[in-house]
Amino acid sequence: MSDVVGFIGLGRMGKSMAINMTRKGFRLVVHDVNRAAVDELEKHQARGAADAAEVAKASDVVITCLPNSAIVSGVVGGAVVPNLKSGGLVMDMSTISPETTDAMAAAAKAAGLGFVDAPIGRLASHADAGQSLFMVGGSEADFARVKPMLEAMGTTIHHCGPVGTGTRTKLVNNFLAVCLAQLNGEALALAQRFGLDLEKTLEVLHGTTATNGQLKLNLQTKVLMGDTEPGFAIDLAHKDLTLILEAANAQRVPLQMGAAAREALSFARAQGRGGKDFSSLVDVLCDMAGIEKPRLKK
Amino acid sequence: MSDVVGFIGLGRMGKSMAINMTRKGFRLVVHDVNRAAVDELEKHQARGAADAAEVAKASDVVITCLPNSAIVSGVVGGAVVPNLKSGGLVMDMSTISPETTDAMAAAAKAAGLGFVDAPIGRLASHADAGQSLFMVGGSEADFARVKPMLEAMGTTIHHCGPVGTGTRTKLVNNFLAVCLAQLNGEALALAQRFGLDLEKTLEVLHGTTATNGQLKLNLQTKVLMGDTEPGFAIDLAHKDLTLILEAANAQRVPLQMGAAAREALSFARAQGRGGKDFSSLVDVLCDMAGIEKPRLKK
Amino acid sequence: MSDVVGFIGLGRMGKSMAINMTRKGFRLVVHDVNRAAVDELEKHQARGAADAAEVAKASDVVITCLPNSAIVSGVVGGAVVPNLKSGGLVMDMSTISPETTDAMAAAAKAAGLGFVDAPIGRLASHADAGQSLFMVGGSEADFARVKPMLEAMGTTIHHCGPVGTGTRTKLVNNFLAVCLAQLNGEALALAQRFGLDLEKTLEVLHGTTATNGQLKLNLQTKVLMGDTEPGFAIDLAHKDLTLILEAANAQRVPLQMGAAAREALSFARAQGRGGKDFSSLVDVLCDMAGIEKPRLKK
Amino acid sequence: MSDVVGFIGLGRMGKSMAINMTRKGFRLVVHDVNRAAVDELEKHQARGAADAAEVAKASDVVITCLPNSAIVSGVVGGAVVPNLKSGGLVMDMSTISPETTDAMAAAAKAAGLGFVDAPIGRLASHADAGQSLFMVGGSEADFARVKPMLEAMGTTIHHCGPVGTGTRTKLVNNFLAVCLAQLNGEALALAQRFGLDLEKTLEVLHGTTATNGQLKLNLQTKVLMGDTEPGFAIDLAHKDLTLILEAANAQRVPLQMGAAAREALSFARAQGRGGKDFSSLVDVLCDMAGIEKPRLKK
Repeated sequence: MSDVVGFIGLGRMGKSMAINMTRKGFRLVVHDVNRAAVDELEKHQARGAADAAEVAKASDVVITCLPNSAIVSGVVGGAVVPNLKSGGLVMDMSTISPETTDAMAAAAKAAGLGFVDAPIGRLASHADAGQSLFMVGGSEADFARVKPMLEAMGTTIHHCGPVGTGTRTKLVNNFLAVCLAQLNGEALALAQRFGLDLEKTLEVLHGTTATNGQLKLNLQTKVLMGDTEPGFAIDLAHKDLTLILEAANAQRVPLQMGAAAREALSFARAQGRGGKDFSSLVDVLCDMAGIEKPRLKK
Repeated sequence: MSDVVGFIGLGRMGKSMAINMTRKGFRLVVHDVNRAAVDELEKHQARGAADAAEVAKASDVVITCLPNSAIVSGVVGGAVVPNLKSGGLVMDMSTISPETTDAMAAAAKAAGLGFVDAPIGRLASHADAGQSLFMVGGSEADFARVKPMLEAMGTTIHHCGPVGTGTRTKLVNNFLAVCLAQLNGEALALAQRFGLDLEKTLEVLHGTTATNGQLKLNLQTKVLMGDTEPGFAIDLAHKDLTLILEAANAQRVPLQMGAAAREALSFARAQGRGGKDFSSLVDVLCDMAGIEKPRLKK
Repeated sequence: MSDVVGFIGLGRMGKSMAINMTRKGFRLVVHDVNRAAVDELEKHQARGAADAAEVAKASDVVITCLPNSAIVSGVVGGAVVPNLKSGGLVMDMSTISPETTDAMAAAAKAAGLGFVDAPIGRLASHADAGQSLFMVGGSEADFARVKPMLEAMGTTIHHCGPVGTGTRTKLVNNFLAVCLAQLNGEALALAQRFGLDLEKTLEVLHGTTATNGQLKLNLQTKVLMGDTEPGFAIDLAHKDLTLILEAANAQRVPLQMGAAAREALSFARAQGRGGKDFSSLVDVLCDMAGIEKPRLKK
Repeated sequence: MSDVVGFIGLGRMGKSMAINMTRKGFRLVVHDVNRAAVDELEKHQARGAADAAEVAKASDVVITCLPNSAIVSGVVGGAVVPNLKSGGLVMDMSTISPETTDAMAAAAKAAGLGFVDAPIGRLASHADAGQSLFMVGGSEADFARVKPMLEAMGTTIHHCGPVGTGTRTKLVNNFLAVCLAQLNGEALALAQRFGLDLEKTLEVLHGTTATNGQLKLNLQTKVLMGDTEPGFAIDLAHKDLTLILEAANAQRVPLQMGAAAREALSFARAQGRGGKDFSSLVDVLCDMAGIEKPRLKK
């Protein structure tokens, strides 16, 4: 724990995480465009720096936790990489584009620096409590170096693979999390128009695959093992979804995601795959887009 | 258990369920267009009937488990209701349109008969094992009458409310189950193109809201209690989903459901609701469609 | 013109068309569930009938113009076909499902009757003025028999092919007409948010392919002749549409159809077809759905 | 015509347009990263420059015609604006984001320079022939200054309004042009699966509103004049589109744009607007997104 850690970006998530690091005994040099946040960290024995370059000059490892790709790219490329001494390491925890992550990692490598992408899962309230989840991309050595820092800020740490896999895993994860919010909205709007009792409906849904049990169980026993024999065939899923969309349209409940899903099932049937298990919809999409089908190692 | 039970429709699900009833001691009169299925039931002490009308004449309660709205409607309206004696009851277990359910229930009532809609959840393999889930609509008295029969065929029985709520709950449930299969497909196709390790990616997703924890937990502590203060704001969700779609398009991964979701979030932001919690997307949809917002009784 | 013509369905379109037939000297026997409409036709020398069966008994050719598939099917199957004498002909002008058209045509043929499907294009105001457009499916002989009747009601008569092609052409035509209304809506909403001058914007759009000049010109010189060399490549179209969606999302203009289109282009690029002319998007869709690519006879 | 004109970006479109300017007697200083293109222009009496800064130093007006927002922004901000003498003018003809256009215009203004955005309509073949269309944003004075240049390169010049309106009009225009290509694809795929004769189908479509006559005629006599009384009601459009989607799904023809359109119509109906003319779908979208409804000045 002898590394001096720079921390740039003391926003809603960053400030809590930096404070948690100071509590675990890390020596921090911090910066944010918001001076008040720096002042607060100084109360926790961190040292405030005037700018990102000063942070880099004073640190062995620099953590960035910033709002978007352009800002991260500017700070890391313009101030951190040029000022960090050889053997140093940059850990970016922002949610940004994979291209930006890859470009920063390449710049860091060219400068003799390590690089880790470690975007944050869970909510701000988890960051406050030191209970975040991290999806980490980086070499084994770099991961080992930052692991104690991550453990100071969170409780679940996934080493996803080489540099860039943290960012990419975060995007896949948030794709599901965000889309589910809208999909749940469509389902509950339909239930409301149908006049169903909300408590009872939720009770039913909680016990079925509506809670995405497929992702947890079925996918892994079926299509991801190469088994596409029908437990529930795409033809039946298409029949049900057609019934649902017709009922919803008759009742004036617009279901944009549901409508997109139905046409996706129609592609599967158009290709003669209607008799396959509905978990194999992933195969249909992969084949149409020239992507290797996902399969678990047996 | 003194009711004689008619069972019409001995297909993939129906046959197993009927057999399970005979095993629990119910006296069955059965019919199917497929004579072989009737023969098989006869080996289980059920009595085969030549047609649906003969089933109805010999029964107190008639169960139908048939492929689609048109067939159910024809059988129940044409053969069962006219031939069942007053005081009898029809229980339809098919997955059909709510309009068909309502029309049959009205016809049954006019003829002095009870009516229950009880579509089947879970897979065919569960039906085989007597482990189905049922979503039941009907009066308290009618539900009490069929409950022992349902217990002979399944392990989880939800009384959703009055007639028609079983069918409607099934549609809401299958809406989520089917759409999730396609949404999971989009997420896994993206993960594949990103070159992520499948085992590791699933391990991460299993511990986050990607498994629709929102439906199980967050919704019920946030928007459904009337609290739309942001844990995770729609503006941030929109920023992430935009990042994801741009990365996916750059990598040539088509995400039709994700694209529909992003535009739905855009409506929320256009209405000045971007600062609200992303669980409140259901409110946005309900307001635009003139549907009462869902709220739990406190 | 010696055929006695039955006309069933005197609604918004049917009444005007029937009146126009009487003005051109046709002898009409008419029925509608709305007695007032029958009364009005009687003032134009048509003979009112008590029901559809009476119309059929008194006619050589029966025209139906009714609201939906179920009603048409019931009237034609239940009253017209059984009561029309051999050698008679049924011409259905309703907009209904192709399956219904095909089933009625088969029933008519089995009864020794001719059958023509001739749904109506253009607006109600055109029907009033005898300026409708008709898309007609039927044999050459049947078409020749009804042609004078259609000429009494409209100005543009397309013989699309054998029975069923009238209905199907109508569906393809209305698909474009209805979808265009929503697509125009998305374009104009974007223009409004951009603060563009409406008159000037329309002036520009009227002189470009935004008025679907592609359908009129480019398609026929490019992909439909088998030429997919780029005038405007799918990659460039995807780049532009991506630019548009990002600008629209930044400005909070939801574009659901545009978003669906962008992902469709992404499929084309995923298949390595990004360098082809954007008119070849039809080929991409046809290949993914197992449909023969459309090509003009050279 | 005494202005010396700099031309940066001699790609597929730019080279032809620059050559056309030399033919009309303009004195050009040109640059491109592709030296061969510069050589070709020198054969047409243009003067080649080593880089963009040299172009700017030698010119009164600088035209840029470059591939994307980032490149244009870098060239204009980094080389053109700093080196163009006061009173000069920048005309960007690239298709880029409105934000980039606005930022460059602001930078030009701050440096005492004029700015015009003039993206190019029509195809590369039109640029070759000097028959391009231009959508121009800029002040009256700046427009007057560049007009002779545009007339040397094209035949149709729209002055859309102040700076930024050229770019925005281009995006609205290309939104329709690109989306129509996919929508036509869906329509023709449906026609193919239906087994319709292609020549006959196109003949029918060319004479109806399938060629977006609504944009040319109906919109301007109906909703844009504030008249939403139905010529063709949204309820009927929804009924037809539902019929079409059901037929397409039954026949396994996936229609992603059509599906998105149907749900949009469902919103209109959910708001009690189903009785309005289908041209008023633009009003429904604008109301849901907080956009002022488009209306023509009467």
